[in-house]
Amino acid sequence: MTMYDIIYKKREGGELTKEEIDFFIEGYTRGDIPDYQASAFLMAVYFRGLTKKETFMLTDAMRYSGDNIDLSSISGIKVDKHSTGGVGDKTTLIVGPLAASCGVPIAKMSGRGLGFTGGTIDKLESISGYRTSVESQEFIDTVNSVGISVIGQTAHIAPADKKLYALRDVTATVDNMGLISGSIMSKKLASGSDAIVLDVKCGSGAFMKDFDSALKLADYMVEIGHSAGKKTAAFITDMAQPLGSAVGNALEVKEAINVLKGEGPEDITELSLQLSAYMVFLGEKAKTYEEAYQMVETNLKNLKGLEKFSQFVKAHGGNENIIYDFNLFPTAKIKVNVLANQEGYVETIHADDIGRAALALGAGRHKKEDKIDLSAGILLQKKMGDKVTVGDVIAEIHGNEDEKVKEAKAIIEKAYKVSKNKQIKQKLIKALIAYKNEKIY
Amino acid sequence: MTMYDIIYKKREGGELTKEEIDFFIEGYTRGDIPDYQASAFLMAVYFRGLTKKETFMLTDAMRYSGDNIDLSSISGIKVDKHSTGGVGDKTTLIVGPLAASCGVPIAKMSGRGLGFTGGTIDKLESISGYRTSVESQEFIDTVNSVGISVIGQTAHIAPADKKLYALRDVTATVDNMGLISGSIMSKKLASGSDAIVLDVKCGSGAFMKDFDSALKLADYMVEIGHSAGKKTAAFITDMAQPLGSAVGNALEVKEAINVLKGEGPEDITELSLQLSAYMVFLGEKAKTYEEAYQMVETNLKNLKGLEKFSQFVKAHGGNENIIYDFNLFPTAKIKVNVLANQEGYVETIHADDIGRAALALGAGRHKKEDKIDLSAGILLQKKMGDKVTVGDVIAEIHGNEDEKVKEAKAIIEKAYKVSKNKQIKQKLIKALIAYKNEKIY
Repeated sequence: MTMYDIIYKKREGGELTKEEIDFFIEGYTRGDIPDYQASAFLMAVYFRGLTKKETFMLTDAMRYSGDNIDLSSISGIKVDKHSTGGVGDKTTLIVGPLAASCGVPIAKMSGRGLGFTGGTIDKLESISGYRTSVESQEFIDTVNSVGISVIGQTAHIAPADKKLYALRDVTATVDNMGLISGSIMSKKLASGSDAIVLDVKCGSGAFMKDFDSALKLADYMVEIGHSAGKKTAAFITDMAQPLGSAVGNALEVKEAINVLKGEGPEDITELSLQLSAYMVFLGEKAKTYEEAYQMVETNLKNLKGLEKFSQFVKAHGGNENIIYDFNLFPTAKIKVNVLANQEGYVETIHADDIGRAALALGAGRHKKEDKIDLSAGILLQKKMGDKVTVGDVIAEIHGNEDEKVKEAKAIIEKAYKVSKNKQIKQKLIKALIAYKNEKIY
Repeated sequence: MTMYDIIYKKREGGELTKEEIDFFIEGYTRGDIPDYQASAFLMAVYFRGLTKKETFMLTDAMRYSGDNIDLSSISGIKVDKHSTGGVGDKTTLIVGPLAASCGVPIAKMSGRGLGFTGGTIDKLESISGYRTSVESQEFIDTVNSVGISVIGQTAHIAPADKKLYALRDVTATVDNMGLISGSIMSKKLASGSDAIVLDVKCGSGAFMKDFDSALKLADYMVEIGHSAGKKTAAFITDMAQPLGSAVGNALEVKEAINVLKGEGPEDITELSLQLSAYMVFLGEKAKTYEEAYQMVETNLKNLKGLEKFSQFVKAHGGNENIIYDFNLFPTAKIKVNVLANQEGYVETIHADDIGRAALALGAGRHKKEDKIDLSAGILLQKKMGDKVTVGDVIAEIHGNEDEKVKEAKAIIEKAYKVSKNKQIKQKLIKALIAYKNEKIY
């Protein structure tokens, strides 16, 4: 078997065997197969696609290219959640504590972000004292004692995916359902949870621009999860505009806390309830999804979720007073309002543009080495469908450099489109690919 | 402009501009664009194709990536000939002297072969004393005094093509009309001749297996030649079986001499007459192709072609007595006959298999560094359509090691297929894409 034969077979539209896929992934991870053969192969995959069977095998090969986390010393059904990423998505900080407050053990490894804003780990670092890097025994102990721990990825998870993704990124071979779903799921499966709730974002601000692609991706990922014996379900949720109001690291943590206080924006509150309810359902702490939903709703109202948030922050060395004193968060020096210059209704808020504005303010990274400004970001005061009159504050910019704030302001002004006509609100949750009982048991 | 954008554009089916193609070729030749981006691009080209316009621009960019030979100090219309390669093709050694004997200056740089047998330069080295590597002034002087010189490629011709071809070879991205024709023509155009006669081989023993592909390739190359202002024509000729009888370096030179003596096999004699006639026609030494054909036929009969062969061998330091004394050629120690084990008519002689047998005997190279056995090879005593009875010698193996001869014998036995039915002889010359007058003047 040679890599040439594998490229040729895929180029001709053939279906690869497990041996061929393992040969590729193992050889590429070791460095025996050069980048130039891998990229030619990836482009052939772009044109010919991967069958579901090939995708399962590819995912499996990438999953076992590195460490697989052993969470067996945590009792109960460990449930993970993964979002394909969107502007203003801080749901992990909400659904983790909510599900944990219902008894579902959450042992989550999160990444740092490369893009518009930081990842969950960056966001958590805006809480003073919070240690994102802990030994695996402490991680497991925290889940066993508190019910939830969220740390940075320390283990050697799916190195094949890491190497392949970097190559795809520079060779225009990212856009393929098999490769995308395999990339996400290889890491999720290696992370050791028993069940996974996926949040597939869909719309102008997401990687999947249209519903059909999002549905296909969700379907691929759910089937990969099932094929690996994990309970997996996927929500498809709207990302035409940013989620919630806050975009930027500290601003997003504050909004997450507000949601847990019952004072958050309606959209992210509702999405968090549904996601965490499904986690509780898959974690078998409720018999039905409806029962699970009532449980998380109750724990939102009685502040049990907020309490869990406080506990896990404390367990990680973070200052738990932060939930009542937002002055403890890093704060931007400059606050500038963006005003409406037209009367009407907000027709669109291009999420990508809001993300770009946040990046311009320093809330995200261009390169891996970039330092993030945790205080910088944007608070959207008007969302799609809202009525505005001239002079209304539509957004609030938080920044630390005049030039950057000016740049962000110009981007945000263009991101909003106001129309004379009343707008029909988009549904936030577009579809749910439920955990298919029959496939697992 | 970035290489990523160029890959993406081609992936999406876009037509590249001259700036984009130049950016790619220049950057890749310099080493600024990595192999892994080039190979992803090449695979996208495999699926999306290149328009003729793109092919012209790519050829041009590769042509000017290195030296362009200046033949202006040779008077007259310099004519080059190129074959896409096939088993037993020794026509350069025949058509060069024949066309030169009619007054067409032939200044030819040839390569060494990687494959079944050596290239023209390897074959010439079976003539004792022949110097294949000479300074460019001596090359030009020889053409001016003798009318023909054939040397190894010394100049830095189309390095972009060399680098790209090596990459295509290991990434399954060879098979594309634009890339194949651009690769051949970039080198031909840089070699400095004014006119080019192409011999596009077609059939099981050639790169182009079917007539339609061969026709398309011929058409692309002729148009590239025209677009560069060179008179270009292409023959499409059969390569279902090896050309002539001899396969292997010294054996092929001997056969070429026999053809020039009027004693060669019919197929290669006829093809050589037609190719050299077209060279004479494009070289404007005859008003029509028919007149040119009469000239070369006359010079075959009166041995003027043979005389020219002798003169150019001598000019290169080779022993010209070789044309009358074949004992001066390297000779194999072992001669083994392959016998027919069935009565009937030869239905096929798979050219690829004969080539593989020659390679097994040591007549060709697996790797660039391999040393060629100049004396080894095969003489086919029966060709397609010939009648055979059991025990007839169908082929003669010339080798120097028993094991290799045994291996070659087994391959040759399988290469011949004998049928009870009388066979219709295939036409050797399948098509001619004539030089299109209207496109140049």
